[in-house]
Amino acid sequence: MSLNIPNINLPRVVIIGCGFAGLKLVQKISSKHYQIVLLDRNNYHTFQPLMYQVASSSLEPDSIVYPIRKVFKGKENFHFRITEVDKVNTDLQELETSIGTLKYDILVVATGAITNFFGLKQIEKFGYTMKSLTESLDLRSIILQNFEKALNTSDLNERKRLMNFVIVGGGATGVELAGALAELKTNILPKDYPDLDIRQMQIHVIEATDRTLAGMSCTASKKSEKFLKKLGVNIWLNTVVKDYDGRIAITSAANFETDTLIWSAGVMGHPIGNLDNSLNKNNRIITDQYNKIKDHNNIYAIGDAACVETEMDGRGHVMLASVAGQQGAQLGKNLNAIAKKKEMTPFKYKDRGTMATIGRNRAVVDLPFFKFSGIFAWFVWMFLHLMLLVDFRNRIVVFINWCWSYFNYDKGLRLIIREVKKPEDK
Amino acid sequence: MSLNIPNINLPRVVIIGCGFAGLKLVQKISSKHYQIVLLDRNNYHTFQPLMYQVASSSLEPDSIVYPIRKVFKGKENFHFRITEVDKVNTDLQELETSIGTLKYDILVVATGAITNFFGLKQIEKFGYTMKSLTESLDLRSIILQNFEKALNTSDLNERKRLMNFVIVGGGATGVELAGALAELKTNILPKDYPDLDIRQMQIHVIEATDRTLAGMSCTASKKSEKFLKKLGVNIWLNTVVKDYDGRIAITSAANFETDTLIWSAGVMGHPIGNLDNSLNKNNRIITDQYNKIKDHNNIYAIGDAACVETEMDGRGHVMLASVAGQQGAQLGKNLNAIAKKKEMTPFKYKDRGTMATIGRNRAVVDLPFFKFSGIFAWFVWMFLHLMLLVDFRNRIVVFINWCWSYFNYDKGLRLIIREVKKPEDK
Repeated sequence: MSLNIPNINLPRVVIIGCGFAGLKLVQKISSKHYQIVLLDRNNYHTFQPLMYQVASSSLEPDSIVYPIRKVFKGKENFHFRITEVDKVNTDLQELETSIGTLKYDILVVATGAITNFFGLKQIEKFGYTMKSLTESLDLRSIILQNFEKALNTSDLNERKRLMNFVIVGGGATGVELAGALAELKTNILPKDYPDLDIRQMQIHVIEATDRTLAGMSCTASKKSEKFLKKLGVNIWLNTVVKDYDGRIAITSAANFETDTLIWSAGVMGHPIGNLDNSLNKNNRIITDQYNKIKDHNNIYAIGDAACVETEMDGRGHVMLASVAGQQGAQLGKNLNAIAKKKEMTPFKYKDRGTMATIGRNRAVVDLPFFKFSGIFAWFVWMFLHLMLLVDFRNRIVVFINWCWSYFNYDKGLRLIIREVKKPEDK
Repeated sequence: MSLNIPNINLPRVVIIGCGFAGLKLVQKISSKHYQIVLLDRNNYHTFQPLMYQVASSSLEPDSIVYPIRKVFKGKENFHFRITEVDKVNTDLQELETSIGTLKYDILVVATGAITNFFGLKQIEKFGYTMKSLTESLDLRSIILQNFEKALNTSDLNERKRLMNFVIVGGGATGVELAGALAELKTNILPKDYPDLDIRQMQIHVIEATDRTLAGMSCTASKKSEKFLKKLGVNIWLNTVVKDYDGRIAITSAANFETDTLIWSAGVMGHPIGNLDNSLNKNNRIITDQYNKIKDHNNIYAIGDAACVETEMDGRGHVMLASVAGQQGAQLGKNLNAIAKKKEMTPFKYKDRGTMATIGRNRAVVDLPFFKFSGIFAWFVWMFLHLMLLVDFRNRIVVFINWCWSYFNYDKGLRLIIREVKKPEDK
């Protein structure tokens, strides 16, 4: 059975995935020249850079996601479907999806990235991740359930394990989550759990390289370490995690007794199964500078899922929302150019800077010619993230929540909406 | 194993359930005279009167729930635990819970109500309810998933079933949900689903008695019917639902082909298993005017779970948040009176009025000596519900959401956070 999409007299562009790349592409591509079909497994776009705030009870899901149908309300010749894509049949120019087949004239793969466990099966089983909204909500529940359980146990070892948090990976995600957990420890949990000695709560960040925020400048790394240490976070550099059985994490430096290991140590491309003839080492689809994949004239890949082969010795651009957004926008313009029989422009990433926040009043910002940190950086971080949110409603909600938290030394609602079972209990 | 609650030199009051009754009781009871232990299966209090707004995508969960630990932050001699109570051992004055045993000196049962399917097993299996937050979130997902599926099917019968909504029960819940769905149909869905003919969406309210809002005045009933009809809702009075197999609802008036039957036709008390020697016909625990249950001097029951036997020929007070709140507050004062060796005051319900809203700009309000409806009633409804929310933060969030919806003819985010499987797919 084929999908219920009308056949009209325009070439059909099918886009798989509505992350930053897919979103910007659809915004730029012209309905005059193309019929646009967007597929995603969810009915919402997620603002991934703030996901850790959902996991740490700072923001509710509705603050950082936005329904796709609403973003593109009123766009002509645009069709959206919730589905998973199983296979691409390039000979027939057809996709096989969970709700039927779909013909394409031009295909764009914007499927993003998934967690890379580097083959550590035990960590995949017992560790927690926050690559999706549901994973982040589950992590929020697990963190809160731990404290509820810690109240009920008289086994001191178990209590210690429940209050010990090990974050693997000192990149932006790990550092920002560690900062948010440290804020929870300082400002929230002592009031919520007066019966518990919250000083027992430990937060560890384990990083395989010799610095945190390895993607940023050395200044930013040093500052972030200083900020984390001030917040009482333990940083383990040059330390590799080897195994985890749900209770003990074995690393090259020490063993950690913990019920909660959060894996933010790596991501890899998330290509579609049978296009994998042209993947780089990190599972990203190799493309040329026009985002076109090898051996096919009408298939493109953008965002985290793609790798422009001339970049960074074949490793491709850094996997960042800003790269994905720029690629999406550029490809949109290029497809419009094709329709008008004009030349395509090769993709060039404009680095406008990177930043990370570490708890209250502290952030690090790397601009191309200027690096700074501290409270001013924190305000810059907040302002830019507010402006980057898709929608005015999101901006208001997040702004109110942040103001509320700031002046009340308080966080969001800490709701355990659904009890999450640990892997061993399942 | 017993619960980790410190033994201090004060009598221990254990309260099961943090609905309106339990919440008000804890607020009133004095920590000088009692150690207070509150048990609930969730870590949040739910503002049930606005639950239908979660199911109809108008409000996000965080708008209508509030974490229990935060409500009672700083209260002395107060302990909260998330647990289910399995059994009361009255001889030992001990509870058996899912996390251990717990001694009590005084026990208060405030466990609320559950859905009453009147023995219709098929409806229990295939129908949807919204008595809890997770049920309401599931219902929201089901409603949205239906429209996504309707897009994908070319089977006209299936599409009709997916867009046909049958609400059983014309009480406040049924009427308010029908109004909210009708607003979705008019203002939201045509924009979200331009490919679907939304006129095919049908909303039916099936009521066994001869009027909607049977708990309110006849004026309110008539007005609510008029309002619903204006919104295009089909009302079936004097109609009894007999069976439902997930596709066809069989009633005394007609058969309805529908994938979504929402059951809001009845609730009953939710007592604890082995206290059932003193239940009324509707499963509510029979109490005297001081909310004390029969045969036990130190066990009380309040709210929907309880029935003051002298009321309404043994049927007890109406199951309303206002009754529950007043009972909780009164019992709190009475327990404080006991501690001071003073007289207890018998419970008298002060009826301050009831109200219901039916879509935009329309509500019905019954005050003890004055009944009115229309746009002014709607503003009164909104203002009172805002003021009744537990917390200032909730009030701001709900207020902003309502203003946003009002001026933009728009609703909340319509997120399908978790896919809900239909019973037959499970």
